[in-house]
Amino acid sequence: MGVFKGRDVLSILDFTRTDLEELFAETDKILASPHSYENELKGFIMATAFFEPSTRTRLSFHTAMLRLGGSYIDLGELERSSVAKGENLADTIRMLDSYADIIVVRHRLEGAARLAAEIAEAPVINAGDGRKHHPTQAMLDLYTIRRAKGVIDGLNYGVLGDLRFGRAAASFILALSIFKPRKLYLISPEILRARREVLETLVSSKISFEEVNDLEAVLPELDVLYVTRVQKERFPDPAEYEKVRGSYIVTAKMLEKAKRDLIVMHPLPRVDEIAYDVDNTRHALYFRQAELGVWVRMALLKLILKG
Amino acid sequence: MGVFKGRDVLSILDFTRTDLEELFAETDKILASPHSYENELKGFIMATAFFEPSTRTRLSFHTAMLRLGGSYIDLGELERSSVAKGENLADTIRMLDSYADIIVVRHRLEGAARLAAEIAEAPVINAGDGRKHHPTQAMLDLYTIRRAKGVIDGLNYGVLGDLRFGRAAASFILALSIFKPRKLYLISPEILRARREVLETLVSSKISFEEVNDLEAVLPELDVLYVTRVQKERFPDPAEYEKVRGSYIVTAKMLEKAKRDLIVMHPLPRVDEIAYDVDNTRHALYFRQAELGVWVRMALLKLILKG
Amino acid sequence: MGVFKGRDVLSILDFTRTDLEELFAETDKILASPHSYENELKGFIMATAFFEPSTRTRLSFHTAMLRLGGSYIDLGELERSSVAKGENLADTIRMLDSYADIIVVRHRLEGAARLAAEIAEAPVINAGDGRKHHPTQAMLDLYTIRRAKGVIDGLNYGVLGDLRFGRAAASFILALSIFKPRKLYLISPEILRARREVLETLVSSKISFEEVNDLEAVLPELDVLYVTRVQKERFPDPAEYEKVRGSYIVTAKMLEKAKRDLIVMHPLPRVDEIAYDVDNTRHALYFRQAELGVWVRMALLKLILKG
Repeated sequence: MGVFKGRDVLSILDFTRTDLEELFAETDKILASPHSYENELKGFIMATAFFEPSTRTRLSFHTAMLRLGGSYIDLGELERSSVAKGENLADTIRMLDSYADIIVVRHRLEGAARLAAEIAEAPVINAGDGRKHHPTQAMLDLYTIRRAKGVIDGLNYGVLGDLRFGRAAASFILALSIFKPRKLYLISPEILRARREVLETLVSSKISFEEVNDLEAVLPELDVLYVTRVQKERFPDPAEYEKVRGSYIVTAKMLEKAKRDLIVMHPLPRVDEIAYDVDNTRHALYFRQAELGVWVRMALLKLILKG
Repeated sequence: MGVFKGRDVLSILDFTRTDLEELFAETDKILASPHSYENELKGFIMATAFFEPSTRTRLSFHTAMLRLGGSYIDLGELERSSVAKGENLADTIRMLDSYADIIVVRHRLEGAARLAAEIAEAPVINAGDGRKHHPTQAMLDLYTIRRAKGVIDGLNYGVLGDLRFGRAAASFILALSIFKPRKLYLISPEILRARREVLETLVSSKISFEEVNDLEAVLPELDVLYVTRVQKERFPDPAEYEKVRGSYIVTAKMLEKAKRDLIVMHPLPRVDEIAYDVDNTRHALYFRQAELGVWVRMALLKLILKG
Repeated sequence: MGVFKGRDVLSILDFTRTDLEELFAETDKILASPHSYENELKGFIMATAFFEPSTRTRLSFHTAMLRLGGSYIDLGELERSSVAKGENLADTIRMLDSYADIIVVRHRLEGAARLAAEIAEAPVINAGDGRKHHPTQAMLDLYTIRRAKGVIDGLNYGVLGDLRFGRAAASFILALSIFKPRKLYLISPEILRARREVLETLVSSKISFEEVNDLEAVLPELDVLYVTRVQKERFPDPAEYEKVRGSYIVTAKMLEKAKRDLIVMHPLPRVDEIAYDVDNTRHALYFRQAELGVWVRMALLKLILKG
């Protein structure tokens, strides 16, 4: 107990399996009795500083704080903020540190959240920085699987789409390295393969994984399919994109070949990489995943601020 | 009792006279004793999603929720939201549905609020969509008249300005069809006449109405004058606009010919369609109207969320 | 007692030394026992209307209100607000007046806050208008000095940078005229000298002051150095700017010639006018100054709304 108290949340790799199990147990408790927690963080102020646009994650944190009786201040649009006057990140964080009890940061550059944590006395939560880290997304992804499947270990996973630039995908892959998946398929076009440091983490964690181009070949084996978007802009040659495009769009038809209890996840927002006809299948778990995200963030905020 | 509990608010035409009288009675009660309601919605979260710019309506809802002890999350600027990443309305609403207890939506397209209501489990309030519907504006308009005049029935009404594209004007005209006005004058240039479906509602409700070009001819008869803006951009020929312009600007001088207790209303914001010299006349009710709007919305939120 | 109750805060010159001492005493009390005040403004709503971009001041007010148990509504981005539809300031203020218990305004034009105060029944706080007035900044500046030095009277002050267009600098100079500084050096390039009306206030208050070009000549005498930014855009000739630039950047090296207990202040955000190596010197007080700002604003809000 108490491992989260006052702690920064910068990378999912900073947490052990035991840490995460404590978080999940706290989430279970809050979900079972939300009203017992409605004044839990009364008097606490959270600052959200999204240097990159975000709606879903920002509002998820706002909702989590409000449901615990706390409140928030929001840095707002960047063009209007002091950042536009040329203020550096460190000074902005110092300001928020003197206003708030906890700081949630998203930034385009890897390391920005860690820099913020070094400057601030208040705990800092990384709500996504660079290409790899989005630890609260990974936490809610894992919790969703645990809730749907009862376990995280021993399952076959597919992570589909942009594994190179997609922050949520990389963060999820790193998160799996803390557990014992049976097999992990990294499914992407050649040019969007996972980065070397991500693969190295899998190797050193002795995760059995395979890089493949094609979803359909491995789909029947999967228990969990984690979908992310393949963006046209990543391809130097648009013709190349058009060629592979169809392989990275999940449809209800395609899922007929899947296990009956395959769950399909997505960090959202989606554009067209999951066809709308999937929404009404038994496989679709992405909306539930977003919903559970609020509860996981409630548990995290509670554990950091109150222990 | 209980007709509002859990209900969507999409069009003023979904409500009967009895429904609206329940709402007005609740508003009276809150106005008489606001402090008794200051914890009424503690623990409830409202999401506001304004896909079209709005200040007045958005802040009116925020204020209403805060005065009842509730809180709000706000989708914020569209260019920065997940909508800009290409997310569709349905997915955005699903997100808000898993965060909030009630969702307030404004959208350029008619039917957007109804679509939102079909998707969301939480009640949805239409804060304006398309060209005709803005039911909470209509509710506060009616309440303002009832408070100033004691009755809504039996009065002579003039609705002035852009009856074709102006959402508040159309919504107000539809609202009157639920009551028994003595006479309704629709005062506008030819090209900004009310839409056919609005007129058909008046006909089927047996409302006595007349379309006229000229305010001054009917002004002496009116008990209520509802003003909206005639925008230059609506005229294919700017010369045409300049010709009629003066007829659609209400001045203190012009009001000398009005009944002593005529009330002048406006959904606000105004630009120059009501001259500033009207503000200090006994006729000006538009600021009071905006003020009462918060109380009507408090009553509505209370009735929907608590019964 | 009670001098602040219901009062507008438009210019620092509207306050006497006794008024300010009451404010500082209240700030001391809140700082000593913040938890006693955490429900002080429960049920009160503050509206913030920043017609000019601001992050630091806006969030400082939001934080102050939240720490007192109150809440806020925010007018938001101007391009999206009713102001963009052509609404005038008076109508916007009238709207906020019917929503909120207190209104905080920033505006490009001098006199905007006074106009707002004439219109609104609720108290109005000027969070900066025109080139001279930013009274809550001046209040927190004075409080910071009093807290660091024990006194405001009898010290040697330097105000450095853009004294002509910089609102915080002008407001600070005016604030000093209410006290008895030993000597005040106004340090700026010729073209950024303080405005005549500011100098006249110093003269009529019998403040001993001197206008100088050069920081280094007067630095050894100073007890307080208040730094603001010299912007390139103020110079008709860029070469002129480049020539003086270095004289208006404060570095740790330069401060070796200062008194041991000189305090360096800045309204923030800074760009490069205080080198980062100053942050770790004993002189740097600007982050503490921003932190104290929240407490001063808490005291002010409390005194205005509750007495």
